Amino acid sequence: MEITTDQNTALTKTLQRIESADQAMLRAAEQRQPHLTKPVGSLGRLEEIANRCAAIFGTLTPSLSRPRIVVFAGDHGVCAEGVSPYPQIVTTQMVVNYLRNGAAINCLANSFGVELRIVDVGVIGPIPEIPGLVRRNVAKGTRNFCQEAAMTAEEMCAAIEVGITMAEEAAADGCNLLGFGEMGIGNTTPASAITAALTGCPVPQSVGRGTGADDECLKRKIAAVERGLALHQAHLSDPFEILRRIGGLEIAAMCGFCLGAAACRKPVLTDGLIATSAAAVAVRINPRVKDFLFAAHASVEPGHKFLMEIIGQRPLLDMGMRLGEGTGAAMAIPLMQGAVAAFTGMATFESAGVATAESKQEQA
Amino acid sequence: MEITTDQNTALTKTLQRIESADQAMLRAAEQRQPHLTKPVGSLGRLEEIANRCAAIFGTLTPSLSRPRIVVFAGDHGVCAEGVSPYPQIVTTQMVVNYLRNGAAINCLANSFGVELRIVDVGVIGPIPEIPGLVRRNVAKGTRNFCQEAAMTAEEMCAAIEVGITMAEEAAADGCNLLGFGEMGIGNTTPASAITAALTGCPVPQSVGRGTGADDECLKRKIAAVERGLALHQAHLSDPFEILRRIGGLEIAAMCGFCLGAAACRKPVLTDGLIATSAAAVAVRINPRVKDFLFAAHASVEPGHKFLMEIIGQRPLLDMGMRLGEGTGAAMAIPLMQGAVAAFTGMATFESAGVATAESKQEQA
Repeated sequence: MEITTDQNTALTKTLQRIESADQAMLRAAEQRQPHLTKPVGSLGRLEEIANRCAAIFGTLTPSLSRPRIVVFAGDHGVCAEGVSPYPQIVTTQMVVNYLRNGAAINCLANSFGVELRIVDVGVIGPIPEIPGLVRRNVAKGTRNFCQEAAMTAEEMCAAIEVGITMAEEAAADGCNLLGFGEMGIGNTTPASAITAALTGCPVPQSVGRGTGADDECLKRKIAAVERGLALHQAHLSDPFEILRRIGGLEIAAMCGFCLGAAACRKPVLTDGLIATSAAAVAVRINPRVKDFLFAAHASVEPGHKFLMEIIGQRPLLDMGMRLGEGTGAAMAIPLMQGAVAAFTGMATFESAGVATAESKQEQA
Repeated sequence: MEITTDQNTALTKTLQRIESADQAMLRAAEQRQPHLTKPVGSLGRLEEIANRCAAIFGTLTPSLSRPRIVVFAGDHGVCAEGVSPYPQIVTTQMVVNYLRNGAAINCLANSFGVELRIVDVGVIGPIPEIPGLVRRNVAKGTRNFCQEAAMTAEEMCAAIEVGITMAEEAAADGCNLLGFGEMGIGNTTPASAITAALTGCPVPQSVGRGTGADDECLKRKIAAVERGLALHQAHLSDPFEILRRIGGLEIAAMCGFCLGAAACRKPVLTDGLIATSAAAVAVRINPRVKDFLFAAHASVEPGHKFLMEIIGQRPLLDMGMRLGEGTGAAMAIPLMQGAVAAFTGMATFESAGVATAESKQEQA
């Protein structure tokens, strides 16, 4: 599919705005590290996080003081294939649970001081009138990708734009660390299909048990992904066509969120399989997105590790999680903040009057 | 060495107070998990953390609202063997850096809202008059364990008691999550010796590069550990004798801190190689200490993984860190808090009106 300026102005403008992180600042940060009062390299991946944040913000004093997680919700036509142990109404019910502060992501966001936005981009609903919901419904769920494309081009572009707008809003509000997640019964199935399409990994290796599929349900998931890939195979070299044909509305929105975060030059934390499949599509659309992505955690879902290669990241956490809804992203937020706090707050050997290893060699 | 009531009242009283965590409450927490609005098991190790905290506090509503990290500092006679690339004065200089808020642990503690205590248990010093230092100096460093026992029994018991007192003070202040770390130039050498003595692993596998030893320095470390183990080998079946002969003052204090935390029934986060060697001695003294320990992270130091088996834990984080000073413990504090927040704050399927997987099976 050709995305032209006429088709989607916000998307093409966003794509034009994405530039690489500041490589000179990355080097400057790397050069500052050995002066801080710790043995060289002893903070491990915390140093890598801090250096990358310096490059993203173009400063040696980056700040991650205001984190926000955006959860995108959507329903899936492929549920007709019996791919989830949960009834589809749970998507709507869980959105209500988020709005009432009752889900895991609420608890983690509250615990870590993270702002939370809940976006209906494709829920069947109806969702009752509860304050806090961002209503951006593009369609009442996708179509069954085993029979036809999940979305029209217009639906997909509108969903991507929802994600871009949410990233731009966060940046405009002063948020300097973004994360994202999703809710959508059945959505490990499109995410596994995207994983197989993007990475070429065998379908059975890209499909896991999601929310807890039993053996029969797992077989139906694998069969659904195989049928979807077979039906759409002539079109799966284009990342937009992957998104449109075998993706989902909330997946398209998350893809847009990654593109928007990169355009706004904000670090953005991925979550589990579904969120990372969206990030991987964004990276295929524009590889510079990699510079802004951080992989929060390693999901239990088997397809997740294949996506890590596409987005060029190594997960920060490995806690055996597989919940989605941004919970993995949330867990990594304090790690990111700690890494940057150490980098920007530590004394140098010089300023603290601490002797270095070199000073001992000189004495000797 | 026989530790009798006469020798050390605080220690023996503490040992008598240590009881297992509440196994019935552990079961009750495990039984509550499937009712929370998430797929069964989907929060992975967060569920395990929450269940264990319920067992430790004996309630289904544990709280980790007030964390504190205690850093114990001490010097080491074995530095005479050339085991560290840094001059010994750095122990004192880094203590000053902590008191002036300039080290990595300060930045992390500030970032995560963690109280910090800095304890001189064995620094050569002198340490200038700066507010905040807890002055509990037992001796001006240990003796060189390649030539004699690192401490007398009196010194060791006094150092253990410093740690017990710091844990009891934290508990009395209302702290409900403890962590600990250390500073002591040369102290990966005694920690590696303890690791080899406790686990029986070959010396070269228990010794790493610490703050950045080059090949020659690494050889001297291995040789020092081998000489120490050979000199004291007749006495290394007793954990107290391990601590006294080849340990350190801050290591003995950290061992006491673990015993004290267990006696006070508080969860306690270990740090890197040196801190974990102290925790491992505590577990050998009383295996019930395991119930209260959480391994914050996997250190790059090669001996660390052997100690994990002794303390019966799996690290929460693997960030390539090897700094010590409680930085690993600090990084794990938000993870612990998030885990407990999710457990105590989430709605149940019943309370939130969310359909379960079972409900779909019943419909079908």
